[in-house]
Amino acid sequence: MSVSTTSIEQLTINAIRTLSMDAVQAANSGHPGTPMALAPVAYTLWSNHLSYDPNYPRWAGRDRFVLSCGHASMLIYSLLHLAGVKKADGSDELSVKIDDIKNFRQLHSPCAGHPESYEVTGIETTTGPLGQGVATSVGMAMAAEFEKTRYNREGHDVFGYDVYALCSDGDLMEGVSTEAASVAGHLKLSNLCWIYDDNHITIEGDTDLAFSEDVGKKFEGLGWHVVKVDDANNLGLLNAAFDSFKATTDKPTLIIVRSIIAWGAPTMANTHGAHGAPLGEAEIAATKEVYGWTYDKFVVPTETTDHFTATMGARGESARTDWEAKFAAYEKAFPAEANEWKQIMSGELPTEWDAELPVFETDAKGVASRASGGKVLNAIAKSVPSMLGGSADLEPSTKTGLKFPGAGFFLADDHSGRNMHFGIREHSMASIANGLCLSGYRPFVSTFFVFSDYLRPALRLSAIMELPVMYIFTHDSIGVGEDGPTHQPVEHLAALRAIPNVAIFRPGDANEVSQSYKAAMELTDRPSIMVLTRQNLPTLDREKYACATGAARGGYVLADCSGTPEVILMATGSELSLAVEAYETLTADGVKARLVSMPCVELFELQDDDYKKSVLPCDVAARVAVEAGVAQSWDRYLGFRGKFVGMKSFGASAPANELFPYFGITAEKVVEAAKASIAG
Amino acid sequence: MSVSTTSIEQLTINAIRTLSMDAVQAANSGHPGTPMALAPVAYTLWSNHLSYDPNYPRWAGRDRFVLSCGHASMLIYSLLHLAGVKKADGSDELSVKIDDIKNFRQLHSPCAGHPESYEVTGIETTTGPLGQGVATSVGMAMAAEFEKTRYNREGHDVFGYDVYALCSDGDLMEGVSTEAASVAGHLKLSNLCWIYDDNHITIEGDTDLAFSEDVGKKFEGLGWHVVKVDDANNLGLLNAAFDSFKATTDKPTLIIVRSIIAWGAPTMANTHGAHGAPLGEAEIAATKEVYGWTYDKFVVPTETTDHFTATMGARGESARTDWEAKFAAYEKAFPAEANEWKQIMSGELPTEWDAELPVFETDAKGVASRASGGKVLNAIAKSVPSMLGGSADLEPSTKTGLKFPGAGFFLADDHSGRNMHFGIREHSMASIANGLCLSGYRPFVSTFFVFSDYLRPALRLSAIMELPVMYIFTHDSIGVGEDGPTHQPVEHLAALRAIPNVAIFRPGDANEVSQSYKAAMELTDRPSIMVLTRQNLPTLDREKYACATGAARGGYVLADCSGTPEVILMATGSELSLAVEAYETLTADGVKARLVSMPCVELFELQDDDYKKSVLPCDVAARVAVEAGVAQSWDRYLGFRGKFVGMKSFGASAPANELFPYFGITAEKVVEAAKASIAG
Repeated sequence: MSVSTTSIEQLTINAIRTLSMDAVQAANSGHPGTPMALAPVAYTLWSNHLSYDPNYPRWAGRDRFVLSCGHASMLIYSLLHLAGVKKADGSDELSVKIDDIKNFRQLHSPCAGHPESYEVTGIETTTGPLGQGVATSVGMAMAAEFEKTRYNREGHDVFGYDVYALCSDGDLMEGVSTEAASVAGHLKLSNLCWIYDDNHITIEGDTDLAFSEDVGKKFEGLGWHVVKVDDANNLGLLNAAFDSFKATTDKPTLIIVRSIIAWGAPTMANTHGAHGAPLGEAEIAATKEVYGWTYDKFVVPTETTDHFTATMGARGESARTDWEAKFAAYEKAFPAEANEWKQIMSGELPTEWDAELPVFETDAKGVASRASGGKVLNAIAKSVPSMLGGSADLEPSTKTGLKFPGAGFFLADDHSGRNMHFGIREHSMASIANGLCLSGYRPFVSTFFVFSDYLRPALRLSAIMELPVMYIFTHDSIGVGEDGPTHQPVEHLAALRAIPNVAIFRPGDANEVSQSYKAAMELTDRPSIMVLTRQNLPTLDREKYACATGAARGGYVLADCSGTPEVILMATGSELSLAVEAYETLTADGVKARLVSMPCVELFELQDDDYKKSVLPCDVAARVAVEAGVAQSWDRYLGFRGKFVGMKSFGASAPANELFPYFGITAEKVVEAAKASIAG
Repeated sequence: MSVSTTSIEQLTINAIRTLSMDAVQAANSGHPGTPMALAPVAYTLWSNHLSYDPNYPRWAGRDRFVLSCGHASMLIYSLLHLAGVKKADGSDELSVKIDDIKNFRQLHSPCAGHPESYEVTGIETTTGPLGQGVATSVGMAMAAEFEKTRYNREGHDVFGYDVYALCSDGDLMEGVSTEAASVAGHLKLSNLCWIYDDNHITIEGDTDLAFSEDVGKKFEGLGWHVVKVDDANNLGLLNAAFDSFKATTDKPTLIIVRSIIAWGAPTMANTHGAHGAPLGEAEIAATKEVYGWTYDKFVVPTETTDHFTATMGARGESARTDWEAKFAAYEKAFPAEANEWKQIMSGELPTEWDAELPVFETDAKGVASRASGGKVLNAIAKSVPSMLGGSADLEPSTKTGLKFPGAGFFLADDHSGRNMHFGIREHSMASIANGLCLSGYRPFVSTFFVFSDYLRPALRLSAIMELPVMYIFTHDSIGVGEDGPTHQPVEHLAALRAIPNVAIFRPGDANEVSQSYKAAMELTDRPSIMVLTRQNLPTLDREKYACATGAARGGYVLADCSGTPEVILMATGSELSLAVEAYETLTADGVKARLVSMPCVELFELQDDDYKKSVLPCDVAARVAVEAGVAQSWDRYLGFRGKFVGMKSFGASAPANELFPYFGITAEKVVEAAKASIAG
């Protein structure tokens, strides 16, 4: 294949390359080499295969494209610009304007260093942390398969689409990508295509320094169809590879493309110097000469945008209008199904979604919040068809199975079910949940609380992308008991509360569980985390104590004294009943005590100042917080005089009822701490 | 093979099984099925292959055995008991006594729910969180290869040993294990053998629900030698598999063993019910009948312990005494090398290890702490031969390369170097570091701070095991700049400070970097974390301000007023110089201000109360903390009147010098906050 700009294909490919070089140079930071290498790959996919209408970038039936190697962000900004992808706001504005590209990596430019889904229409998911994009693409492919198998009907082949992810060796080295690939292979997601940029270069040098896998063989072992393209510049081979993917109906496809980083750059091609820094003006000039590129900086020849309009644009428009006609026929024939699907895609909760929210009777013996949580989850999910999810092989323990008729299982040979088996792969489970959520669903995922550490990178992306993924973490403290310190969360509440834009709920009894789920469902711009117990919690007498609906405000006065309290007790989760006991003891002892239940610190902080001060009056400095974790996230409410009853070290292996006294987490200790705090 | 107890081999295998059943039943919790299934595998390995002297369990030349499926802990407790492994304290006491087993999973029993390395001699690493054991075993194998290639000499084949890890499908589903397997395959660690318990059962049911990999093919793709054993009860096949491992000299070996969970249990064998709960008295009785087991509960026939003494014991003793003779000859011929190796194994720092600790000149332009960190790391590592490590493909950015002569690289064809290429595999990097540390080394690992999320599960194990692994995290805030929010840590300082038994250093200038490394090196019972900048930090004038040696106490008064301060400023890292500027402004404005530099909150908290109060007097309530992260971990020092200058949200993509003002982290804002705090 000729190097220079001798055909419209080549001109368009070089437009992607030159825009990328120019933008990185102007920003004086960024990654030029990969966009230059992969321009022909992305070009071939977008112009010849991707079913996507640039004028309707949120069309539900579109194919998805994920740039997993997010550092190559200029590739997707260039593509979005050249393809003329519009903003989703209905305006006629381009999603990425040339001025946005000129301001690549500058404050307020949508063209951020790495692609941010909430910044730019057409970015299907935020990428940058390696492995996340490919893992998230599995969730998108599952969403497509789910609607295809659940909603299509005889003679109505409406739903389902393909998902493409472009990835680097870095993506494939990260464990999360193997986890996700294993899930995809197991589930036979034939609508999923990963394209691996095999460029033999990493930041430290040649991939030979650390990476000598037979990637193809590994993926065959994972149940994938593998195709090799020996030259990223060979459009014929690339087209054949994509055709091979589309012809494969029983497994996902990996296309391994041998590429040269910074292809065409006379001195920097095939060097790791071209990975993460501008090429420099001189090298750019020389490279443009190699490309036969005669235009000024940032100039995009009209022929190239016209070419995209004539190829992807025309194909996408036709596919979309076809789809709309098919959907109209479907809607007429199957109005209930069509309405359900539309309801899901609206992102709104159905009316009366919380009609069957359980109310639990007072019960001193009580119920584990994982168990009440399972009931509440089922009561909601039955009415909310967008809810689907599962566990990392712990469903019998986390109690997160959807048990109602029609819930079904999402299995290798049947993709229509709402219960998913993620296997012992917490990290990819969360990335997949992000993909499901980006596809319009309200996914939930579950594991033991201590293993939230395994999925933090994906949870952080849920928070950055403002995705209402629900994380259900059970076995939430030393209450785990015999499994010992490796299985007992201590620092995890604090560690999660530190993340911006996350709501962490740790309900104190079954009715707070109900109210916490309700509040979590109403949050649509952030992930929610349910932190639930293994052990039983008494169900409080809500005639005697305040109504559990207070949980909707994050924190509320559960029991009070008359007049100004001498001391305020604060508690969450399994320690709430200890605090109740302490409150009763203090009250009986004539101490004026207030008890605040604080199932969600983040929601409490969102309340207005008057409410917050009404719950935690500034002039009451004697305070005690009790929680079977570290103190860190309570210090804000304790001040210098407050006391904390909780953990200072890792846990131990023993029956749970011995561990609480062993670590000094008892009602007596709360009473002592209260008296000490009052004494000042 | 006959089921019943007809041979000494079978009797011993059944002793492992019955002890495991009895202990789980007595504890009324635990995992009986896997020990029952794997007893013949572990028996064969220990009695016929493992080079291990039960009387000298810390012999440096011993083979290592890792039980990666830590939930099967009764397997290793049974083995340690039957093999007569002694405590490492020099006493003649058994490491695991029968009473310890009777108290399995009870408070103060060393036989915890999952194996804890610090509880029991013979537990080479704490396991339980899946994937960690196998990943850690790669570090052990690297340590063995390192000493073999670095210290053996012509005619002196002293060093090097084999490492075995027994693992489950859960281990292999976790991404960290594939990462680690990829490293091991790449590095051709032929001394590493994983044994995969292919039992087709997980907690949710059959592995077919979520796991249908061709594991053998995957591992071949990862560069491993793969052997299959179709029946876990076939000792002949097992012995042949181990022989095949030992005969393989160019790659690690995976032995895939088909097993039946709870083998022999009449109704529960091959069911997931046997995974995580006691079998029940009736099933145990019936199972013992199947085994032909006639002894009482917890009775261990003397023949079985004698048998282990005659096999593993005799072989181990002979191997150890041979080794000692060889080492004596080596020491005579190569005293310097022998001394260096002994020095490493002592766990002590060499004398004068810090003799070349850099002192940095005052410099307003300054130096990035990643750069000064690289210098300090080199100055120390040159004198401390136990230090080795590397980066997850970011060495040119984290500056953690050891550049001095003789440092060398640990490569596929040369295992003698101290610089390691971990690839883009943060999680396994940290697990491998745990393995290196458990083998006597002082490893360091590095990546960008935001990617600390990828390795938290392994870091938590460093803390639980009290391992002095050094984590070097650079690019520590919005100071990352253009890479944007996915690459900018915000919550990470708080999230790490929440973990018990970790020391987090965020030095404020180059001299604090020196002192922080020094303090970290002196901590031998916990991991240290260095949090370093991408951007330059001024090197403070230590004539004008207090000496950087104060960093050794975690926090110290850097600049002060006369008399009682009106306000205390606290800062770390890149915000220290802002705080200095604010201090100077306040002082010039006539405000009595004190400035506290707090490079390590955890070390400061370890100081005595007098010192702490001398730095932060209780009666000064006006306080400001400034740190480019969330407030959470500062609340303890701020009380209700203190103010925080830092982050409340995720970051943004722009040049770093624009981001600090954009997010309100400036000297002016610190001055404003100080005045507001004084005003109360």
